[in-house]
Amino acid sequence: MGKQQRSGETREALLESGSRVFATIPFDKARIADVIEPLGVTQGAFYFHFENKHELALEIIRREHAMMVDLSERVLSSAGGGLAGLHEVSTGLAELVRADVTVQAGLRLTSHTPEEFPEFLGASFTMWNDAIGKFLLRAQRAGEVRSDVEIEAASRFVVATFVGVQEISAIATRWADLDERIREVSSLAIRGIATDEGYEAFTASLSPTAAR
Amino acid sequence: MGKQQRSGETREALLESGSRVFATIPFDKARIADVIEPLGVTQGAFYFHFENKHELALEIIRREHAMMVDLSERVLSSAGGGLAGLHEVSTGLAELVRADVTVQAGLRLTSHTPEEFPEFLGASFTMWNDAIGKFLLRAQRAGEVRSDVEIEAASRFVVATFVGVQEISAIATRWADLDERIREVSSLAIRGIATDEGYEAFTASLSPTAAR
Repeated sequence: MGKQQRSGETREALLESGSRVFATIPFDKARIADVIEPLGVTQGAFYFHFENKHELALEIIRREHAMMVDLSERVLSSAGGGLAGLHEVSTGLAELVRADVTVQAGLRLTSHTPEEFPEFLGASFTMWNDAIGKFLLRAQRAGEVRSDVEIEAASRFVVATFVGVQEISAIATRWADLDERIREVSSLAIRGIATDEGYEAFTASLSPTAAR
Repeated sequence: MGKQQRSGETREALLESGSRVFATIPFDKARIADVIEPLGVTQGAFYFHFENKHELALEIIRREHAMMVDLSERVLSSAGGGLAGLHEVSTGLAELVRADVTVQAGLRLTSHTPEEFPEFLGASFTMWNDAIGKFLLRAQRAGEVRSDVEIEAASRFVVATFVGVQEISAIATRWADLDERIREVSSLAIRGIATDEGYEAFTASLSPTAAR
């Protein structure tokens, strides 16, 4: 194995270990030792890859954002789109939040210690507003969303609902009930913006037995 | 002024100063010195009233909860109730969040460092689900909420939406736009659960010029 490849693997291992640390320990309390000890990596190796703890955290947040943008663009470019696509994004997002330690770390870093990452202050909300807006606009053009619904306001509404559900589920059950909570609020949230036909199509897509 | 009265005033001053500290500094980083220095109070005086920083924080969280329960019960027992009452509670809550340092401290302590306060894990969500449920049940009996709406699910939906809006507004504008954001999402959220008559009555009550 070449030196460059080994170096890349160490960097990946540091990001993975750092994610585990930041997903469970407050940023202020987390130490570089917590990140390197499970890997048997030296302080020197850490500082070769990252200037400090803050820079490691920034890269984890960047990756979290990239994963979320990827998810939304993948669904948007697939046949789906519209309200069914919105549901697909919600459940995909729930899966990431529940199972991916990089996403958990990114969410915790930006929501519990936003003052440490002013670069990202509100950036993820803006990103989500834009992404959800694309689904809603497509749904409105397809007659699934009422024509009197203002897309930007409706996007902020959907994002706020998801942020709230995620926060409550994180605190109450550490995301164990996130799927169930999303299914519950989606149905009520969509009812507020959908046409009758759009709402029927959406609830049909919620059913676990729905054809794909 | 009697000794007991002075002691009570010191305790209140410590709670007020502690709220200012916990509203702005992460719990881990906040020091008792930060609480007592602005008051010119001694460490000894602090420990006469509170066992430690954690006990001070607990009392602040308890007060935050009590203020919120008071608000909801006051509106519920007033003529209002129903969907207009729900809006009154939302705006009252927004006012507390924006202007009251005890509420700001309680929210930050329980949402940023929930692991430090397991006594309150999820307790505020349960309290809010119950409180909002009372408004929605009254609204349903008055024909403002559709009869097929399940009250507990709808309560969790309304609470999740408010939690999300509060969190986004806190991070993006430190609550400066909270009123506007609540007005925007309330209208969409209520549309998802209200009858046509209920929604009309609700939007009429949203208007700043609405008769009280």
